[in-house]
This record gives sequence, C-alpha cells and structure tokens, in this order.
Amino acid sequence: MTVDVDFGEDGLVPAVAQDADSGEVLMLAYVSSEALERTIETGRAHYYSRSRDELWEKGASSGHTQEIREVRVDCDADTLLYLVDQNVGACHTGHRSCFYRTVEGENVGERVFDPDAVYDDE
Amino acid sequence: MTVDVDFGEDGLVPAVAQDADSGEVLMLAYVSSEALERTIETGRAHYYSRSRDELWEKGASSGHTQEIREVRVDCDADTLLYLVDQNVGACHTGHRSCFYRTVEGENVGERVFDPDAVYDDE
Repeated sequence: MTVDVDFGEDGLVPAVAQDADSGEVLMLAYVSSEALERTIETGRAHYYSRSRDELWEKGASSGHTQEIREVRVDCDADTLLYLVDQNVGACHTGHRSCFYRTVEGENVGERVFDPDAVYDDE
Repeated sequence: MTVDVDFGEDGLVPAVAQDADSGEVLMLAYVSSEALERTIETGRAHYYSRSRDELWEKGASSGHTQEIREVRVDCDADTLLYLVDQNVGACHTGHRSCFYRTVEGENVGERVFDPDAVYDDE
C-alpha cells in the first residue's frame, strides 16, 4: 500500500467506521498493522481489542459484519476511516451506531436489534 | 452533564469531528476534560494537543473554527463525536477533511484553501 500508516509506539491507530451510504458515524475502534492487512485482504473490517489484547473481526460472533467500501487515511497518517456497509447494527447495545447519546444523556439513536437475543451465547 | 465521560489513564479521549450537514468526517483529535468543558461552554470545538501538550481551539489561528451543533458520546463513554459547522476547511493541508486520501494513496478530497496563505505567520 502506498500510504505508510504511522502505528506509533503502541502499534495501534484509531479507526472510525462510517456508513458508506448514510454517512452515519458508527463506531471507533483501534487497528493494528495486522488488522489493517486483514481488513484489506478480506474486505471486512478487522480491529484490535486493547482489553482482550487480540485481533478481531467485527461481527464474527454477532453476524453484524462491516463490508469495506474504502479505507482512508488522515493527513498525519495516524488515523483511519473505514467506509462500510454495516450489517444490522454496529453497537453491542442494539443501536445502529455506538454514538446514540448526546453528552447530556439524551438518546438520539436508532435501536435495530435486541442485544439479549444476539449476544446470548457469549 | 449527564454522561460521565471516561477520560482514561492519560486524561484524553478521541473525538471525531463530523460536518453536521453533509455528514463528512472531517478530522480526529484528542479531548481532555477541560477541552470538553470549553467546547460546551463556548459552542466552538476545543481539543488537547498531545504533541504541544496544550489545550487548543480549532481555528484560533486559521479562522477555520468549528461551531458545535451537538456533542455525542459512544456506548463506552470513551469516544466523542462533535457534530459541527466547519468554517472553510478542517485540514491544515487545505482540504475540507483530513481524510482526503485512500490507503492506496489516491487523493479523493476537496481542496478548499491554500495553506501557504493561511498559515503564513506560524
């Protein structure tokens, strides 16, 4: 790939996932060099979990995968933007987007699935 | 404010700035507790520079301020989304958005000002 992404000291960059059609910002997660490679190879969004310390594919257990339309890099090459087709919803709370609340606590998001039904086995 | 933002060990959270009208993702920068307070108080986007180690107001020198329409918080309360009216352009390279390149290096962004003219005095 042409742009040399700066993964920094911890080997991770933040990645913003945005719905390629509606423009809705869905989530932010972290990406390692390997996660970026897998994302490009497979055409499905991969991230790196800092809490579980492992590479993960979005939707691997829930089925709520993100198909990649385009990966963009910012001016400093230390942040990514995934333009995606989101299956069902991005958020584990059942909302379409993780940004379903204002900072004042008002719920402005769309609930698209029941998390108890989807994440039952975990 | 109702949502208790988790500023973590380093006291910072990433904040995504999105054009409130077009939905374009403009930039990602970091926000301290004080930067968030200033953002809410003034209605203009403030961030915290990790390299300069200081609070800054977006556009304070360039005039390319971001007027806040809404601040959102994600499900884990450790990432913010600023919905803004962006004056001119968000990126110091002269592009409307910092995400003006694909990871393959193709320029897909809109150039809206000449950075040499704007940042001449710095």
